[in-house]
Amino acid sequence: MSETHGMHSITVLVENKPGVLARVCGLFARRGFNIESLTVSITDDPTISRMTIVVADDEHELAQIISQTNKLIDVVKVVDYYSHPTAERELALIKVAVKAADRAELMQVANIFRANIIDISKTTFTIEVTGSKSKIDAFVELLKPYGIKEAVRTGTIVVSRGASTAMS
Amino acid sequence: MSETHGMHSITVLVENKPGVLARVCGLFARRGFNIESLTVSITDDPTISRMTIVVADDEHELAQIISQTNKLIDVVKVVDYYSHPTAERELALIKVAVKAADRAELMQVANIFRANIIDISKTTFTIEVTGSKSKIDAFVELLKPYGIKEAVRTGTIVVSRGASTAMS
Repeated sequence: MSETHGMHSITVLVENKPGVLARVCGLFARRGFNIESLTVSITDDPTISRMTIVVADDEHELAQIISQTNKLIDVVKVVDYYSHPTAERELALIKVAVKAADRAELMQVANIFRANIIDISKTTFTIEVTGSKSKIDAFVELLKPYGIKEAVRTGTIVVSRGASTAMS
Repeated sequence: MSETHGMHSITVLVENKPGVLARVCGLFARRGFNIESLTVSITDDPTISRMTIVVADDEHELAQIISQTNKLIDVVKVVDYYSHPTAERELALIKVAVKAADRAELMQVANIFRANIIDISKTTFTIEVTGSKSKIDAFVELLKPYGIKEAVRTGTIVVSRGASTAMS
Protein backbone atom coordinates (compact mmCIF):
# COMPACT_ATOMS: atom_id res chain seq x y z
CA MET A 1 0.00 0.00 0.00
CA SER A 2 2.52 2.48 -1.21
CA GLU A 3 1.57 6.14 -0.83
CA THR A 4 3.24 6.77 -4.16
CA HIS A 5 0.79 5.82 -6.87
CA GLY A 6 2.14 3.45 -9.50
CA MET A 7 5.43 3.04 -7.68
CA HIS A 8 6.73 0.06 -5.78
CA SER A 9 9.26 0.04 -2.94
CA ILE A 10 11.69 -2.79 -2.25
CA THR A 11 14.21 -3.00 0.58
CA VAL A 12 17.39 -4.99 -0.04
CA LEU A 13 19.79 -5.78 2.80
CA VAL A 14 23.27 -6.41 1.40
CA GLU A 15 26.78 -7.07 2.66
CA ASN A 16 28.67 -3.78 2.85
CA LYS A 17 31.26 -4.61 0.16
CA PRO A 18 32.41 -2.90 -3.05
CA GLY A 19 30.59 -4.29 -6.07
CA VAL A 20 27.28 -5.27 -4.45
CA LEU A 21 25.51 -2.06 -5.47
CA ALA A 22 26.69 -2.41 -9.04
CA ARG A 23 25.44 -6.02 -9.18
CA VAL A 24 21.99 -5.14 -7.87
CA CYS A 25 21.66 -2.07 -10.12
CA GLY A 26 22.95 -4.10 -13.06
CA LEU A 27 20.30 -6.76 -12.52
CA PHE A 28 17.52 -4.17 -12.65
CA ALA A 29 19.10 -2.55 -15.72
CA ARG A 30 19.39 -5.83 -17.64
CA ARG A 31 15.68 -6.46 -17.09
CA GLY A 32 14.97 -2.99 -18.47
CA PHE A 33 13.73 -1.65 -15.12
CA ASN A 34 14.45 2.00 -14.72
CA ILE A 35 15.04 2.80 -11.05
CA GLU A 36 12.91 5.79 -10.05
CA SER A 37 14.89 6.36 -6.89
CA LEU A 38 17.52 4.53 -4.92
CA THR A 39 19.00 5.12 -1.51
CA VAL A 40 21.79 3.14 0.07
CA SER A 41 23.07 3.69 3.55
CA ILE A 42 24.70 1.97 6.47
CA THR A 43 22.69 0.14 9.12
CA ASP A 44 23.31 -0.42 12.81
CA ASP A 45 25.34 -3.42 11.76
CA PRO A 46 28.39 -1.97 9.94
CA THR A 47 28.72 -5.09 7.78
CA ILE A 48 25.22 -4.59 6.31
CA SER A 49 23.94 -1.83 4.02
CA ARG A 50 20.29 -1.18 3.32
CA MET A 51 19.05 -0.28 -0.15
CA THR A 52 15.59 1.13 -0.85
CA ILE A 53 14.68 0.80 -4.51
CA VAL A 54 11.60 2.45 -6.01
CA VAL A 55 10.49 1.27 -9.44
CA ALA A 56 7.38 1.63 -11.55
CA ASP A 57 4.74 -0.97 -10.70
CA ASP A 58 4.84 -4.14 -12.76
CA GLU A 59 3.82 -7.02 -10.53
CA HIS A 60 4.75 -9.90 -12.80
CA GLU A 61 8.19 -8.64 -13.74
CA LEU A 62 8.87 -7.56 -10.17
CA ALA A 63 8.26 -11.01 -8.72
CA GLN A 64 10.94 -12.34 -11.07
CA ILE A 65 13.45 -9.63 -10.34
CA ILE A 66 12.96 -9.95 -6.57
CA SER A 67 13.62 -13.66 -6.84
CA GLN A 68 16.78 -13.00 -8.88
CA THR A 69 17.98 -10.30 -6.48
CA ASN A 70 17.59 -12.78 -3.62
CA LYS A 71 20.00 -15.12 -5.40
CA LEU A 72 22.77 -12.54 -5.89
CA ILE A 73 26.01 -12.93 -3.94
CA ASP A 74 26.14 -10.68 -0.84
CA VAL A 75 22.39 -10.08 -0.84
CA VAL A 76 21.15 -10.93 2.65
CA LYS A 77 17.43 -10.28 2.33
CA VAL A 78 14.87 -8.71 0.02
CA VAL A 79 11.68 -7.23 1.44
CA ASP A 80 8.80 -6.38 -0.87
CA TYR A 81 6.32 -3.92 0.67
CA TYR A 82 3.62 -4.50 -1.93
CA SER A 83 0.90 -5.72 0.44
CA HIS A 84 2.14 -4.07 3.64
CA PRO A 85 1.06 -0.75 5.11
CA THR A 86 4.12 1.47 5.11
CA ALA A 87 5.37 4.87 6.15
CA GLU A 88 7.26 6.42 3.24
CA ARG A 89 9.31 9.57 3.43
CA GLU A 90 11.81 11.45 1.35
CA LEU A 91 13.92 14.54 1.96
CA ALA A 92 14.50 17.39 -0.47
CA LEU A 93 16.77 20.43 -0.43
CA ILE A 94 15.45 23.14 -2.73
CA LYS A 95 17.24 26.36 -3.61
CA VAL A 96 14.72 28.90 -4.78
CA ALA A 97 15.19 32.44 -6.10
CA VAL A 98 13.66 35.04 -3.80
CA LYS A 99 13.17 38.76 -4.23
CA ALA A 100 13.00 40.94 -1.11
CA ALA A 101 9.27 41.46 -1.70
CA ASP A 102 8.61 37.69 -1.78
CA ARG A 103 10.47 36.71 1.38
CA ALA A 104 7.54 36.85 3.79
CA GLU A 105 5.28 34.95 1.40
CA LEU A 106 7.89 32.22 0.83
CA MET A 107 8.37 31.82 4.57
CA GLN A 108 4.61 31.30 4.91
CA VAL A 109 4.61 28.66 2.17
CA ALA A 110 7.50 26.88 3.91
CA ASN A 111 5.63 27.03 7.21
CA ILE A 112 2.51 25.44 5.79
CA PHE A 113 4.59 22.51 4.52
CA ARG A 114 6.52 22.32 7.81
CA ALA A 115 9.63 23.02 5.77
CA ASN A 116 12.73 24.71 7.17
CA ILE A 117 14.80 27.43 5.57
CA ILE A 118 18.36 26.24 6.19
CA ASP A 119 20.40 28.75 4.16
CA ILE A 120 19.88 32.26 2.86
CA SER A 121 21.71 34.40 0.33
CA LYS A 122 20.80 37.83 -1.05
CA THR A 123 18.95 36.17 -3.92
CA THR A 124 18.04 32.66 -2.65
CA PHE A 125 16.49 30.56 0.09
CA THR A 126 17.56 26.93 0.54
CA ILE A 127 14.62 24.99 1.97
CA GLU A 128 14.59 21.54 3.59
CA VAL A 129 11.35 19.57 3.37
CA THR A 130 10.37 15.98 4.17
CA GLY A 131 7.28 13.99 3.29
CA SER A 132 5.80 11.55 0.86
CA LYS A 133 6.85 11.83 -2.77
CA SER A 134 3.50 13.45 -3.61
CA LYS A 135 3.86 16.07 -0.85
CA ILE A 136 7.29 17.04 -2.12
CA ASP A 137 6.05 17.09 -5.72
CA ALA A 138 3.31 19.52 -4.61
CA PHE A 139 5.80 21.70 -2.71
CA VAL A 140 8.13 21.86 -5.72
CA GLU A 141 5.19 22.88 -7.94
CA LEU A 142 4.33 25.71 -5.53
CA LEU A 143 7.91 26.98 -5.58
CA LYS A 144 8.29 26.88 -9.37
CA PRO A 145 6.86 30.36 -10.00
CA TYR A 146 9.60 31.88 -7.78
CA GLY A 147 12.30 30.14 -9.82
CA ILE A 148 13.91 26.90 -8.62
CA LYS A 149 17.69 27.18 -8.91
CA GLU A 150 18.40 23.65 -7.71
CA ALA A 151 16.48 20.73 -6.20
CA VAL A 152 18.04 17.61 -4.68
CA ARG A 153 15.90 14.74 -3.43
CA THR A 154 17.00 11.66 -1.52
CA GLY A 155 14.46 9.29 -2.99
CA THR A 156 11.99 7.43 -0.81
CA ILE A 157 12.79 5.32 2.24
CA VAL A 158 10.23 2.94 3.68
CA VAL A 159 9.40 1.23 6.97
CA SER A 160 6.41 -0.97 7.67
CA ARG A 161 3.75 0.55 9.91
CA GLY A 162 3.21 -0.93 13.37
CA ALA A 163 5.75 -2.98 15.32
CA SER A 164 6.98 -5.33 12.56
CA THR A 165 10.30 -4.73 10.81
CA ALA A 166 12.22 -5.72 7.69
CA MET A 167 15.05 -6.99 9.86
CA SER A 168 13.13 -9.73 11.64
CA MET B 1 34.12 21.62 3.76
CA SER B 2 31.98 18.64 4.39
CA GLU B 3 30.24 18.54 7.77
CA THR B 4 30.91 14.80 7.83
CA HIS B 5 34.49 14.31 8.96
CA GLY B 6 36.58 12.06 6.72
CA MET B 7 33.78 11.76 4.17
CA HIS B 8 33.55 13.29 0.75
CA SER B 9 30.41 14.14 -1.24
CA ILE B 10 30.16 14.06 -5.02
CA THR B 11 27.16 14.95 -7.14
CA VAL B 12 26.79 13.19 -10.49
CA LEU B 13 24.15 14.30 -13.00
CA VAL B 14 23.31 11.41 -15.34
CA GLU B 15 20.89 10.61 -18.15
CA ASN B 16 17.84 8.85 -16.70
CA LYS B 17 18.41 5.49 -18.47
CA PRO B 18 18.68 1.88 -17.27
CA GLY B 19 22.30 0.88 -16.79
CA VAL B 20 23.82 4.24 -15.86
CA LEU B 21 23.67 3.61 -12.12
CA ALA B 22 25.29 0.22 -12.51
CA ARG B 23 28.09 1.73 -14.60
CA VAL B 24 28.84 4.48 -12.08
CA CYS B 25 28.65 2.08 -9.09
CA GLY B 26 30.78 -0.44 -10.98
CA LEU B 27 33.48 2.15 -11.60
CA PHE B 28 33.73 2.94 -7.88
CA ALA B 29 33.72 -0.78 -7.03
CA ARG B 30 36.53 -1.62 -9.48
CA ARG B 31 38.70 1.06 -7.87
CA GLY B 32 37.99 -0.51 -4.49
CA PHE B 33 35.99 2.47 -3.25
CA ASN B 34 33.29 1.45 -0.87
CA ILE B 35 30.34 3.79 -1.18
CA GLU B 36 29.31 5.00 2.29
CA SER B 37 25.97 6.25 1.06
CA LEU B 38 24.29 6.81 -2.28
CA THR B 39 21.09 8.53 -3.24
CA VAL B 40 19.65 8.71 -6.72
CA SER B 41 16.52 10.60 -7.59
CA ILE B 42 14.81 12.44 -10.40
CA THR B 43 15.40 16.12 -11.07
CA ASP B 44 13.18 18.84 -12.47
CA ASP B 45 14.30 17.67 -15.89
CA PRO B 46 12.80 14.16 -16.25
CA THR B 47 15.63 13.07 -18.56
CA ILE B 48 18.24 13.73 -15.85
CA SER B 49 18.82 11.92 -12.54
CA ARG B 50 20.98 13.24 -9.75
CA MET B 51 23.27 10.96 -7.74
CA THR B 52 24.90 11.97 -4.47
CA ILE B 53 27.77 9.68 -3.59
CA VAL B 54 29.54 9.80 -0.23
CA VAL B 55 32.87 8.00 0.07
CA ALA B 56 35.74 7.98 2.54
CA ASP B 57 38.22 10.78 1.90
CA ASP B 58 41.14 9.93 -0.34
CA GLU B 59 42.01 13.01 -2.36
CA HIS B 60 44.42 11.44 -4.82
CA GLU B 61 42.27 8.45 -5.71
CA LEU B 62 39.15 10.61 -5.82
CA ALA B 63 40.59 12.98 -8.43
CA GLN B 64 41.16 9.98 -10.69
CA ILE B 65 37.75 8.44 -10.15
CA ILE B 66 35.99 11.77 -10.73
CA SER B 67 37.84 12.16 -14.00
CA GLN B 68 36.84 8.61 -15.02
CA THR B 69 33.23 9.14 -14.00
CA ASN B 70 33.14 12.25 -16.18
CA LYS B 71 34.10 10.12 -19.18
CA LEU B 72 31.34 7.51 -18.70
CA ILE B 73 28.52 7.35 -21.23
CA ASP B 74 25.35 9.14 -20.05
CA VAL B 75 27.18 11.08 -17.34
CA VAL B 76 26.32 14.76 -17.85
CA LYS B 77 28.31 16.41 -15.09
CA VAL B 78 30.29 15.61 -11.95
CA VAL B 79 30.47 18.14 -9.11
CA ASP B 80 33.04 17.70 -6.36
CA TYR B 81 32.20 19.66 -3.21
CA TYR B 82 35.62 19.26 -1.65
CA SER B 83 36.46 22.95 -1.37
CA HIS B 84 32.93 24.36 -1.30
CA PRO B 85 30.84 25.27 1.73
CA THR B 86 27.80 22.99 1.64
CA ALA B 87 24.56 22.23 3.41
CA GLU B 88 24.34 18.48 3.97
CA ARG B 89 21.28 16.67 5.20
CA GLU B 90 20.01 13.16 5.54
CA LEU B 91 16.70 11.66 6.64
CA ALA B 92 16.23 8.69 8.93
CA LEU B 93 13.18 6.67 9.98
CA ILE B 94 13.82 4.90 13.27
CA LYS B 95 11.49 2.36 14.88
CA VAL B 96 12.24 2.19 18.57
CA ALA B 97 10.78 -0.03 21.29
CA VAL B 98 8.84 1.98 23.87
CA LYS B 99 7.30 0.96 27.17
CA ALA B 100 4.35 2.95 28.49
CA ALA B 101 6.57 4.43 31.20
CA ASP B 102 9.12 5.71 28.62
CA ARG B 103 6.69 7.41 26.24
CA ALA B 104 6.89 10.92 27.70
CA GLU B 105 10.67 10.78 27.92
CA LEU B 106 11.02 9.58 24.32
CA MET B 107 8.74 12.37 23.12
CA GLN B 108 11.02 14.88 24.87
CA VAL B 109 14.11 13.39 23.23
CA ALA B 110 12.39 13.60 19.83
CA ASN B 111 11.43 17.21 20.52
CA ILE B 112 14.98 18.24 21.37
CA PHE B 113 16.17 16.82 18.02
CA ARG B 114 13.21 18.40 16.19
CA ALA B 115 12.21 14.87 15.23
CA ASN B 116 8.63 13.81 14.49
CA ILE B 117 6.86 10.69 15.68
CA ILE B 118 5.09 9.51 12.54
CA ASP B 119 3.71 6.11 13.63
CA ILE B 120 2.82 4.47 16.92
CA SER B 121 2.06 0.91 17.92
CA LYS B 122 1.51 -0.56 21.39
CA THR B 123 5.20 -1.35 21.64
CA THR B 124 6.94 1.05 19.23
CA PHE B 125 7.38 4.63 18.03
CA THR B 126 8.52 5.32 14.48
CA ILE B 127 10.46 8.59 14.47
CA GLU B 128 11.43 10.77 11.50
CA VAL B 129 14.55 12.93 11.89
CA THR B 130 16.65 15.02 9.52
CA GLY B 131 20.08 16.56 9.92
CA SER B 132 23.75 16.10 9.27
CA LYS B 133 25.14 12.57 9.47
CA SER B 134 26.66 13.36 12.85
CA LYS B 135 23.37 14.67 14.26
CA ILE B 136 21.57 11.51 13.19
CA ASP B 137 24.40 9.34 14.55
CA ALA B 138 23.99 11.12 17.90
CA PHE B 139 20.20 10.66 17.84
CA VAL B 140 20.54 6.94 17.08
CA GLU B 141 23.00 6.57 19.99
CA LEU B 142 20.48 8.23 22.33
CA LEU B 143 17.72 5.85 21.23
CA LYS B 144 19.80 2.68 21.53
CA PRO B 145 19.06 2.08 25.23
CA TYR B 146 15.33 1.92 24.45
CA GLY B 147 15.93 -0.75 21.80
CA ILE B 148 16.09 0.13 18.11
CA LYS B 149 13.92 -2.28 16.13
CA GLU B 150 14.77 -0.82 12.73
CA ALA B 151 16.61 2.19 11.31
CA VAL B 152 16.54 3.34 7.69
CA ARG B 153 18.64 6.25 6.49
CA THR B 154 18.58 7.95 3.11
CA GLY B 155 22.26 8.81 2.98
CA THR B 156 23.41 12.39 2.63
CA ILE B 157 22.33 14.91 -0.01
CA VAL B 158 24.28 18.09 -0.60
CA VAL B 159 23.78 21.57 -1.98
CA SER B 160 26.32 24.37 -2.05
CA ARG B 161 25.68 27.22 0.36
CA GLY B 162 24.79 30.63 -1.05
CA ALA B 163 23.30 31.29 -4.48
CA SER B 164 25.52 29.04 -6.62
CA THR B 165 24.31 25.65 -7.85
CA ALA B 166 25.60 22.37 -9.26
CA MET B 167 23.36 22.84 -12.30
CA SER B 168 24.98 26.02 -13.60
